[in-house]
Amino acid sequence: MDLLDGMATTRAIRRYRPDPVPEADLASILWHATRAPSGSNRQPVRYLALRDGPEARRAKAVIGEAARAAWGAKRAQDGYDEGSGADASSPKARTARTMQAYVDGLDDVPVVVLVCALPRRSVTGLHVGASVYPACQNLLLAARALGYGGTMMMWHGLVEDRLRAVLGIPDEVTVAATVTLGVPEGRHGPVRRLPLGDVVFDGRWEAPAPWAVDPPGTRFTAAGPPRRPDSLTGGAGTTDGARET
Amino acid sequence: MDLLDGMATTRAIRRYRPDPVPEADLASILWHATRAPSGSNRQPVRYLALRDGPEARRAKAVIGEAARAAWGAKRAQDGYDEGSGADASSPKARTARTMQAYVDGLDDVPVVVLVCALPRRSVTGLHVGASVYPACQNLLLAARALGYGGTMMMWHGLVEDRLRAVLGIPDEVTVAATVTLGVPEGRHGPVRRLPLGDVVFDGRWEAPAPWAVDPPGTRFTAAGPPRRPDSLTGGAGTTDGARET
Repeated sequence: MDLLDGMATTRAIRRYRPDPVPEADLASILWHATRAPSGSNRQPVRYLALRDGPEARRAKAVIGEAARAAWGAKRAQDGYDEGSGADASSPKARTARTMQAYVDGLDDVPVVVLVCALPRRSVTGLHVGASVYPACQNLLLAARALGYGGTMMMWHGLVEDRLRAVLGIPDEVTVAATVTLGVPEGRHGPVRRLPLGDVVFDGRWEAPAPWAVDPPGTRFTAAGPPRRPDSLTGGAGTTDGARET
Repeated sequence: MDLLDGMATTRAIRRYRPDPVPEADLASILWHATRAPSGSNRQPVRYLALRDGPEARRAKAVIGEAARAAWGAKRAQDGYDEGSGADASSPKARTARTMQAYVDGLDDVPVVVLVCALPRRSVTGLHVGASVYPACQNLLLAARALGYGGTMMMWHGLVEDRLRAVLGIPDEVTVAATVTLGVPEGRHGPVRRLPLGDVVFDGRWEAPAPWAVDPPGTRFTAAGPPRRPDSLTGGAGTTDGARET
């Protein structure tokens, strides 16, 4: 698969076939993850693969329980079953079904990788991620190259203490991401994003970049819910459908 | 370029030819960056491209000044000119020369992209990066696909207030990364990392993953300086040379 095509077509995959991920493929996926850069090449990332052992299965169940609770709350709070969501064929209802199936199946996802960040002394919150999340992106791209799909989620944060206990993760280590992986099941839509001109500025904040044009065929996130007061998302928000991506 | 090969061979590039980056290539690089995922597809990233306008040049100079001060301090503190660093052919001395040339040339780097994170209400520091740094990795991979090279650095943090003033960046927006881009100059070494088995655990923290083997030809970070007290880097540390990667 071509590098640019791979980036253009890698999207969140939340429906998996039950097929396992062979060890050689998982090793290759993780090896490519580790090629990502980190500050001073310190490589402060560890990958805890959860497959079929007893502790792995227990940990998956703990994450699944948290994800079901979190998604249930979000589903109600964000009104997924109201308005257009009452129509089963609406994007909103489709998203709700996909998310529900995802959290319902988490205990049995073929592979879950907990991407863990080793402690750092000197850098504040956000920037620590610069040495961790590039590897997560490589992981997802490598999965795609090898015929798998996955997504990154953060619901482990709700049960981090229980995960530490089950898996022996030291207190000073942070679970930075939970990545679920498997062979994609069914059809998945295209990657949708804001128009490039909405997110690129040239030379000054909010100065337009007329050269920042999307290639033909680009699919966009349609106008969505009103801006949140804490957000500067710009004119085009996210659609319900886009929440899947 | 193949997707897996691209990830395997993308490394930090800090020496650039003076060639400009044509707008169409820059647009493509940024478009591929925006294909990366973000939480709920909220896309909280904005890309501020610094090229040749007066404010862009001023901002590059501000970053350059900060980087020279920061590197100068690090060079002294980490003893780059002592021990093996006194030998001009040592990896340590080579790293020091590359870094010095990098910071000395920052004002004239063809393109600097400030990757900016829009404010979020509900997520703590580290995890915000999960919606920002995957895009930075795509940006660097896309640059490589198109014949460019780059690196991500954080020294803007030392002068963020001055950058805000020069570029009109709102207070609530965070500059998450500074990415420098250009056509690579000269020869660059391979990506070097810790052995895969050092960073992958199977089913429990620190449980070995015998299947996590590096492909033939993998180059490693050699045993380096002693562990820092705040680090769990494991047996093999980073070498001075590896700091370039």
